[in-house]
This record gives sequence, structure tokens and C-alpha cells, in this order.
Amino acid sequence: MSETTLPSTEDVQARLRRGPYHEWLGIEVISVSEGEIELSAKWREEWVVNPEGGYTHGGILAALVDLTADWALVSQTGRGVPTIDLRVDYHRAALRGDLRTKGKVIKFGSQVSIAEAYVYDADGRLLASGRGAYSTAKPKA
Amino acid sequence: MSETTLPSTEDVQARLRRGPYHEWLGIEVISVSEGEIELSAKWREEWVVNPEGGYTHGGILAALVDLTADWALVSQTGRGVPTIDLRVDYHRAALRGDLRTKGKVIKFGSQVSIAEAYVYDADGRLLASGRGAYSTAKPKA
Amino acid sequence: MSETTLPSTEDVQARLRRGPYHEWLGIEVISVSEGEIELSAKWREEWVVNPEGGYTHGGILAALVDLTADWALVSQTGRGVPTIDLRVDYHRAALRGDLRTKGKVIKFGSQVSIAEAYVYDADGRLLASGRGAYSTAKPKA
Amino acid sequence: MSETTLPSTEDVQARLRRGPYHEWLGIEVISVSEGEIELSAKWREEWVVNPEGGYTHGGILAALVDLTADWALVSQTGRGVPTIDLRVDYHRAALRGDLRTKGKVIKFGSQVSIAEAYVYDADGRLLASGRGAYSTAKPKA
Repeated sequence: MSETTLPSTEDVQARLRRGPYHEWLGIEVISVSEGEIELSAKWREEWVVNPEGGYTHGGILAALVDLTADWALVSQTGRGVPTIDLRVDYHRAALRGDLRTKGKVIKFGSQVSIAEAYVYDADGRLLASGRGAYSTAKPKA
Repeated sequence: MSETTLPSTEDVQARLRRGPYHEWLGIEVISVSEGEIELSAKWREEWVVNPEGGYTHGGILAALVDLTADWALVSQTGRGVPTIDLRVDYHRAALRGDLRTKGKVIKFGSQVSIAEAYVYDADGRLLASGRGAYSTAKPKA
Repeated sequence: MSETTLPSTEDVQARLRRGPYHEWLGIEVISVSEGEIELSAKWREEWVVNPEGGYTHGGILAALVDLTADWALVSQTGRGVPTIDLRVDYHRAALRGDLRTKGKVIKFGSQVSIAEAYVYDADGRLLASGRGAYSTAKPKA
Repeated sequence: MSETTLPSTEDVQARLRRGPYHEWLGIEVISVSEGEIELSAKWREEWVVNPEGGYTHGGILAALVDLTADWALVSQTGRGVPTIDLRVDYHRAALRGDLRTKGKVIKFGSQVSIAEAYVYDADGRLLASGRGAYSTAKPKA
């Protein structure tokens, strides 16, 4: 990879936000570097799994792990790529509030790549983490 | 388990829909039996990951795998339980449209239980599947 | 697939046992059908993780899940194929004794396939289960 | 945790090697620190999956990921603990030769803990990685 291909934070933000679900999750790109990304997500009442506890649904955290790991690959892929499979571990109940995520490439491959992601609350507590396998085969000409 | 504890479809529907995210996903309970459940989810434009293809975001499918596997345990748990971790495989791009899911208990345990789930489109094509580990320890008195 | 491609139990046994680790695990092919396989493994003292309990190491069960799911694809692949990733759930401590496994294809794909496997003790108790993603892309000519 | 509880490399080596499968894998403890461990494994001909390529079986790599992640918890657990489930990603074919592993705790919990592990060849190339969920509940008195 030549270093000139690293897209800007604004570029990645624009591409990510073209997806209606990313828009709904309120994804903002905080930083992009080679094989790494930091994002934030804006809490919404619809995220809650139970009205008493106000905990965020595991499916929201799974989406954040998936998309953060996927876009950690953006310095090499230039775009979101198909997820082959996903593993998510839930570490702590996620209370109401905006979230922060960090993604990192574990192995970039010509066919399949592996990246991981961590989801934190506003106080920096680790809520969930995981890794996914992504299809990074070149599209056929 | 005595068979009298199997909750009705209406009961499970009412409990599930108390969660705002389940409400947002338009979850309907089609059937409940011992260690099994069938659900449907109502498509929304916000689910889309990319405006051209109109594909549903993997995070939506992950949420459906998670909640369907979780509620497959309802004949033994009577309620949704915490997810410890989740594995999701993506088999085919999910185009616009309502979804159907089937969940089944693999192993019910006193501390940790494993259940699996399958997500289908309206034509019965398998889109995603997976399994989760759920905390089924009795709450402390 | 034409049905003539289903290899015989003896064929699959011969191919599987060419691998020294399969030989060491004492793998025998019990049956092969379209997208399904049944195997047995012969217990050895080296499998044990702890001398007091005599439990079989989780890595042995992981190997059995991996190879059983992989060879469940044999009716379509004709051979063992590379594992992309693996998920294993441990349901019950595996005491000394031979093991039985069953594998089944969840989704056969042109690039990536998903198959699952279950590991049982001699009394039919479920000890472990899981699923893997396998590379089923055609080798380049 | 008081720092006095960190066991020595020799202690961990002795405990690990009480397991016949660890002995068979030739596990040596290189270093132990708070929530981290480094190990080596001694190659054997029985590890091979195919006689032509001489590749190490994925089940061997899975065992190394499992046991390395498990024993990364040793500074807190003092012993090997039961694996609940395991995820392994295969990054590159493992040719004949000894292996090195590094494990690290992701989240230590009172009931369930998550740790990750990486497997390298003698030249430091990443061959496999993964994470497991481990049962770290205190044994009942």
C-alpha cells in the first residue's frame, strides 16, 4: 500500500454515513489510521432491550463491533466489505449513553481479513469486544 | 421442567415487545415450543447498509440471531437472559423485505446455555445463522 | 451435484487417515451422506488435560469439531479443505473414552462454506459442538 | 490482586505440564506477567494434517489458542480453568516447526473471563489467533 491511499476522516465519515443504518446509529468517525479506526455512536431510546434497566441491546453492540472492525480495514479496502462471520463477547451491561469504538486489523489477507473491535461507554469502560472475518477479495473486473 | 411452564405465544410476544429495540425491529412471535421458537421481523428502510444494493446491515441480522437464540430458551427461562457471547455467519446478502427466524436450544445448562438461530427471507432462503452462549444461572435470592 | 460423486465410506476413511494427526486421533468413518458425516475417535491417555479428573483436553474436542465439520463437506469437495475460522462450545466435561462425532453442512458456498459438528461420548451425551467456516473456492487451474 | 500472587514461570510450567496433552505438545513457559503469558510448543510429526504439504492441523493450533488464552488468566486464577467456548481464526498455513504463543486477558470477570491468544512460527509470522470465554467463578466451598 502506498501511504497516499489513507482516506481522510471526512472521507470515511461520508462513505460510512451513506448507509441508513450507520446514519440511524449516529456513527461519527473520530480518527482513521493505517489498519485502525475510532468511531462514536449516538445513543437512542430505541436501542434499549428492557425498559427497567435501560440496557442497550446486544444487537446494537454487535452491529458496532461488526462495522468498526469492517471499517478498520478501510485504509486497505477503501470501503465497507462483506462480513463473512462475527464473534462478539459481552463484558458489561451497557447503560444509556453514547458509545465509543476502536477497531484494528489483525491480519489483512488477499481473500479473507480479520479485524477486531472494542466498544466503550463514555467513561471508557469496556462493554463489548469481538472480531470478524471479512471478504477482501478484489471484485472481479 | 413441567410442561405447564411453557408460555403461550401471546405471553412471549408481550414480554419480547416490552423491549424498545424488539419493538423497533417489529418482532412477532409465530410459535413457541419446548426449546424452540419462530419469530418474524418487519423490514424498515433504516436497516439498509448501502443505498444502491439495499442490503440489510449485518448488525440487524446479528441482533436477530442473538434475540432468537436467546428466546428459544424461554420455555426454560421464562424471560430474556444475558448474552455471554455470539457467533454469526452470513450466508447470503439480505435484500429488502421482512425476515423469519427460527431458534433452537443446543444445550440447556444450569450456568451457561447454548442456543442457535437461523434467519430466512420471505422466500425461505437462509441469510444468516449462528449461536450464542447465554447466562442461565438462577438469579440470587 | 450428481449423486455419483458421493465417495464411499472406505474412500473417505483412506483420505482422512493420510493425515498423521487424524491417524493419531484414531479417526474412523462410520457413514458419509450428502452433506453429512459420522466419525469415531479412539481415546488415548495423551488426550488428558488433568491427571486427577482424567478429562479430555478442549483442544482435542476442538480438533474433532473442526475435522468433522470440514469432512461433512466431502460430498461436495471430495477432500479436506482449509479452515477459515472455528467456533467451539464446551457443554460437559469429557471423561476417558472413545468419542463419536456428527457433522452437517449448514451452507455450501462457492467461496466459503459453513458446517457444524457435534461430539458425543460412548453413552451419547453431548460433550461439545461448534461450527466452522471453510474455504471451498475452486483451486486455480 | 496483590502482586505477591503472580506465580513464577517455573510454577506455571510445572502446573501446565501436569496435563498429559500439554506434555505431548511440548509446552514450555517463556514468561508470565499480570494477565499475560508467553509459551512455546515443540513440533511433532503427528501434528501434520497432510503428508505432502506438511501443514500443522488446525486442531493443534486451536489447542494452542485455547490453552494460551486460558493460562493468560493464571495471574488471577492460579490454575487452568474450564473453557466455555472458543473462537479461532486461521491466518496462514503452519509449516513444520516449533511454535510460539502469546496470551492476554481481555476482561477478567467474577463469573466469565475473556482472553485472547496469538500463535506464531519460529520466524514470528502470525499463523492463528483467537479468543475464548473461560469460567472463572470461584469453586463452591
